Amino acid sequence: MSLDRLPTPCPVIDLDVLERNLARMALRAQAAGVALRPHAKTHKTLQIARRQLAEGAVGLTVAKTGEAEVYAAAGFDDLFIAYPVVGLGKPERLLAVARRARLAVGVDSVEGARALGAPFAAAGMHLRVRIEIDCGQHRTGVLPEDAAALARQVAPLPGLELEGVFTHGGHAYGCTTDAAREERAREEATRVAQAADAIRAAGLPCPVVSLGSTPTAATAMAGVGITEVRPGNYVFHDATQVALGSCGLEDCALTVLATIVSVPAADRAVLDAGSKALAADVRRPTPDGHGIVVGTSSRLTSLSEEHGVVSVAAGDSFHVGQRVRVIPNHACVVSNLHDVLYAVRRGEVEEGWPVAARGRVE
Amino acid sequence: MSLDRLPTPCPVIDLDVLERNLARMALRAQAAGVALRPHAKTHKTLQIARRQLAEGAVGLTVAKTGEAEVYAAAGFDDLFIAYPVVGLGKPERLLAVARRARLAVGVDSVEGARALGAPFAAAGMHLRVRIEIDCGQHRTGVLPEDAAALARQVAPLPGLELEGVFTHGGHAYGCTTDAAREERAREEATRVAQAADAIRAAGLPCPVVSLGSTPTAATAMAGVGITEVRPGNYVFHDATQVALGSCGLEDCALTVLATIVSVPAADRAVLDAGSKALAADVRRPTPDGHGIVVGTSSRLTSLSEEHGVVSVAAGDSFHVGQRVRVIPNHACVVSNLHDVLYAVRRGEVEEGWPVAARGRVE
Repeated sequence: MSLDRLPTPCPVIDLDVLERNLARMALRAQAAGVALRPHAKTHKTLQIARRQLAEGAVGLTVAKTGEAEVYAAAGFDDLFIAYPVVGLGKPERLLAVARRARLAVGVDSVEGARALGAPFAAAGMHLRVRIEIDCGQHRTGVLPEDAAALARQVAPLPGLELEGVFTHGGHAYGCTTDAAREERAREEATRVAQAADAIRAAGLPCPVVSLGSTPTAATAMAGVGITEVRPGNYVFHDATQVALGSCGLEDCALTVLATIVSVPAADRAVLDAGSKALAADVRRPTPDGHGIVVGTSSRLTSLSEEHGVVSVAAGDSFHVGQRVRVIPNHACVVSNLHDVLYAVRRGEVEEGWPVAARGRVE
Repeated sequence: MSLDRLPTPCPVIDLDVLERNLARMALRAQAAGVALRPHAKTHKTLQIARRQLAEGAVGLTVAKTGEAEVYAAAGFDDLFIAYPVVGLGKPERLLAVARRARLAVGVDSVEGARALGAPFAAAGMHLRVRIEIDCGQHRTGVLPEDAAALARQVAPLPGLELEGVFTHGGHAYGCTTDAAREERAREEATRVAQAADAIRAAGLPCPVVSLGSTPTAATAMAGVGITEVRPGNYVFHDATQVALGSCGLEDCALTVLATIVSVPAADRAVLDAGSKALAADVRRPTPDGHGIVVGTSSRLTSLSEEHGVVSVAAGDSFHVGQRVRVIPNHACVVSNLHDVLYAVRRGEVEEGWPVAARGRVE
């Protein structure tokens, strides 16, 4: 079926671009001598995850227990939940996942770690845990200087096996220059390696030293002592990655196909794609509209749930019924809004991929 | 089951508050002598829609063809799509809906209207259309002074029946004072009524004069010549409605139940609810964090997809594993992120309501 026959709004994946993105990151990781464990949160599909493994990924990263359940049920046998999992029922659900897949989970507190270990100890099993390191984002995780102290408390807990450390240089998304972004990437690598060294100096094992985000991956994975990289967004890229300099417009694999439903004034056209199709995420590092209207100079200046309002630039013109493609600000949240991603090659829809892990926030 | 047993994050509806909200708006519409046609986009469930009809609503408002399909398939027999529907395949889908339900659709261009009418004419049927009026939001719709000209073009088109006019005073969400909000509400009523008068003066029928948004509904529905009101958010309310003065905290029926997964510093606690559970929508009329952490003075200062970062206020304390409830900035987009809403009364979960029209953006 031709792309021209898809109902709008809908998310479209350009297969040629996707495949180039997949191959490029796989080659980078191979050249750096680190394991690639991509974060599946960006696509949430089984089809792209399988392509990542086919390109040499050692396994998948996910964010939540519910996502791990989806991938384990589909036969993916090596999963890392890059999140300090805490909450009622979660340890027992992790035990069920660990019976089907090699599983590791993040921890950043002894209380959280103890709760995770309990059902594993009762079952005579061990859950692999990785200590989350705060390399400067100041979200979750312990500071590198506190890593050894937490490792000493976590390592002896029943039902757990300390496997390493991980971090995420998410604060690189705030960098407005390439130099600043590179500096964040080097810090990310230095700080997580520092934490690993401190844990080993305390006489504890730390085989895995994991980091990564799409804007920092290329530099950070080359750091001394790094064993694994976990970029997610690189499969699709988006307007934020273009603004950050992680990629060019031609590297954006995901667009939202939309229809102009109204041209109520000469300087205004309205799309059938609003925040329910494109998400309300602000472009980083600097706010600048709600996505790139491909092939035009016009800006997508405001979104409501079902409307995208385009400020029409001089030289552009739009008519009711016209179809356009929009590169969203943040691809990872766009896939979470839709049930199916349409995989397209040179204008032909090859497959519809169910967003199998959509909405698995638990 | 107790609320305390629900896995997090998840959306919870307080039934006592919901029922009070439903009854209050129904009484207001009854007192004003206007038809209540609530916008179902806020809840997207069949269960709340049925309660709205039981309270006297004449039918439902929806935003997209896909939502109309869900409600028509479930037996709802009076639907208005408050949107200028345009796009490949949509007229044919509307025809299928119109075979099951009394259907009206918005139009704001003759091109759009002509396309809608074509399959209806071929089937020997008529689609009811309402002309969208721009009362100041400057999104879709024609200005009141242009309404009669469009009506003259639309009314004779094959397959269409001109039923009236509608508007939405969405720009009231930018008002920082009650006085400004009331002024927007009066303008909304005046302008849509002006458009209706102009259409009638042109010798065309205009039986329906419809308006509404939750912040403007109470004032606008009392305007001269108004026949129908279409609020949506009032069923749940949210932090934006509290900020606008549409309601109090005690009128917020939807909260997101979340767990503290990390307390990495004395002034920082992290929830397992991020933008995938709470949505990234900015609070209006003035940006102020990402939701209200119920029963605390602490602010939810940043969200990433799976993390909500709380800046802990003096006097508040949080511990790993603690459960909290968050009133989101924008309830309508929260229901779109989840598959089930949990209906709770005094701490007991009575039912799980599937979000039947979730993701129906087409």
